Amino acid sequence: MVLHSGGPTPVVNASLLGVVEETRRHARITQLWGARFGIDGILNQDFIDLLALDPNRLSAVALSPSSGLGTSRRYVDEETLAAILKVLVSRGVEYLFYTGGNGSMGAAARIAESSGVRIIGIPKTIDNDLTHTDHTPGYATAARFFACAARDIGADNRALPGQVEFIEVLGRNTGWLVAATALARRDPDDAPHLIYFPETRLPLAQLLDDVDRVYRRLGHCVVAVCEGQLDESAQPFGADVRPSSGRPLAMNLAHRLAMLVTEKLKLRARSEKPGLLARSSAAYFSQLDWDEARLAGEAAVRAAIAGESGVMITLEREPGSFYSVRCGTAPLATVASAERAFPAEWRNAAGNDVTSAFLDYAEPLLGLIEHYPTL
Amino acid sequence: MVLHSGGPTPVVNASLLGVVEETRRHARITQLWGARFGIDGILNQDFIDLLALDPNRLSAVALSPSSGLGTSRRYVDEETLAAILKVLVSRGVEYLFYTGGNGSMGAAARIAESSGVRIIGIPKTIDNDLTHTDHTPGYATAARFFACAARDIGADNRALPGQVEFIEVLGRNTGWLVAATALARRDPDDAPHLIYFPETRLPLAQLLDDVDRVYRRLGHCVVAVCEGQLDESAQPFGADVRPSSGRPLAMNLAHRLAMLVTEKLKLRARSEKPGLLARSSAAYFSQLDWDEARLAGEAAVRAAIAGESGVMITLEREPGSFYSVRCGTAPLATVASAERAFPAEWRNAAGNDVTSAFLDYAEPLLGLIEHYPTL
Repeated sequence: MVLHSGGPTPVVNASLLGVVEETRRHARITQLWGARFGIDGILNQDFIDLLALDPNRLSAVALSPSSGLGTSRRYVDEETLAAILKVLVSRGVEYLFYTGGNGSMGAAARIAESSGVRIIGIPKTIDNDLTHTDHTPGYATAARFFACAARDIGADNRALPGQVEFIEVLGRNTGWLVAATALARRDPDDAPHLIYFPETRLPLAQLLDDVDRVYRRLGHCVVAVCEGQLDESAQPFGADVRPSSGRPLAMNLAHRLAMLVTEKLKLRARSEKPGLLARSSAAYFSQLDWDEARLAGEAAVRAAIAGESGVMITLEREPGSFYSVRCGTAPLATVASAERAFPAEWRNAAGNDVTSAFLDYAEPLLGLIEHYPTL
Repeated sequence: MVLHSGGPTPVVNASLLGVVEETRRHARITQLWGARFGIDGILNQDFIDLLALDPNRLSAVALSPSSGLGTSRRYVDEETLAAILKVLVSRGVEYLFYTGGNGSMGAAARIAESSGVRIIGIPKTIDNDLTHTDHTPGYATAARFFACAARDIGADNRALPGQVEFIEVLGRNTGWLVAATALARRDPDDAPHLIYFPETRLPLAQLLDDVDRVYRRLGHCVVAVCEGQLDESAQPFGADVRPSSGRPLAMNLAHRLAMLVTEKLKLRARSEKPGLLARSSAAYFSQLDWDEARLAGEAAVRAAIAGESGVMITLEREPGSFYSVRCGTAPLATVASAERAFPAEWRNAAGNDVTSAFLDYAEPLLGLIEHYPTL
């Protein structure tokens, strides 16, 4: 059985394709169920017979963003866990391929501990915040989206000067996606001119100083800011906050910052919030990301057949000058309990840009970002 | 001389290419200046010698979004007008190609009235709100962006149910762009489920009723709303307002509506604001739009050579079953004084969707919107 859990990504269907294709290569697996809408599909016994699907249809879905199976954010409490186990037993499920981020890996770990079903996690998050893996399928495409968005908004901002633009970037508490906007630049003065990381607090005075300095020098300014950025009081600058169990997550951070810049610096400012487009648009597919998502699906089936359980597939970057990757595994429980912050050594001393070590890490993942010629 | 005025579009550089290419075909034009940053370029005498440019470089710029020349929103008051005329006379400018929307055409008309320079307007606005033309270069690409955004966010919203998504669409006071999101649908229940038009006020109670009804039926809901939408009191639902001379233009309308739905209907709601990406991204180029933008540039030069002045190039759709277009002209002053609203007969009776007559109008402009297969 395979399921999706948490927010869709543009390449999660490629992992599904990998699971189905690898399953077909192993005669001992005679049936493959896809749960519709994640855990809900198990609870409602709403399944798709994936081996009966027309392979052309599956390939077409694999090239599409969002989740073809459907997904869910349902929390697995004790009662839900018992209900899941009952269905898995009654269906005779031997292997469960659990596609998700760190919250999902926690649920997968608990199912693994409580049942004889072999559980393999397939990493899936645009946030890139899982430990034990070089990166996560979904990150490269979303990162490419935001790098291209920063390039495009930068081209607009340069052509029509006199404005400060805030781009709100996904990523919750970690700076992996906002950092990727640095790949929009060809020249040092290209957008984004300032990049902030939610791993450190950003005093409002520092933000205003930075914007003022850039604007005075260039006459325009593009700022990339993560949706989870907090100020010196660990608050989101007075933005509205989404009801959430963890730390406050703003719903309109970039807008709030544009208002503050307008008010305090008397500059014309506006905000862009591409929002879910970054995880739902196929316009910026990273082919490498798609290939690796598929690879992770295949590796999950091979790991299960080889007798592994309670692990998540990881991507390990091979040492050497050319980018290459191989799959490994890490225990579900250790992945589930941790969030991988954007490394401090990849942020500059002023806390408003990346270092070149991050560019070396990210460039092979995002692929070529085309730059626009100028007159 | 050629200049850009107002916000960039993804195809304004194609109009520049058309002007340069057509100029090369007329031996009597020996010099073509491009003003850098619009009116500012004239005032600062900051010009590019466009006939001296490497044609390959110009072609590459023509395929890029944003304005290669640079542009400006500077208002042309009496003093500015006098300064502009002085430069035009001292440079011996015979023809001025003025690329912009209705505000810009007003400035162009005043220059035409006050000088012997022949002025031809080249239409350029993603808003599609100019009179006397079937549509404007820039509209089709931005419309395609928002149709694809509605499709992509719709795919996400369907895969992860339980959420109401508001997509904020550009367009200021007119519903042309928000209407285009209707082309995202293949099936009647596809996103967007509700489309609102700023030409009519939207009572909050009606919005909440509509959202509640869709959500109860489908378990999820995508709403497309124009940034200029006003409520029954002609206010933007309590959103923050951009300083502006005209009617109030909200800065965070979709966010405000998501907050109201969360509060009043107790539903999980969020907002997306792709913002300037719709006018700065080349990912959704409409080839037809690019071709027509170039055509408008060429037609402007031919009109000037033929002795016309004080007119804007228009696109006239030929009658018949196959889409075809030819260029005409309309007086600058009449174009400048009017804003073309989205037609009342293209809105449904409930005020929350388009009619099929709009789809017939828009489909040839946007081109094929690919739909995603489902399992």
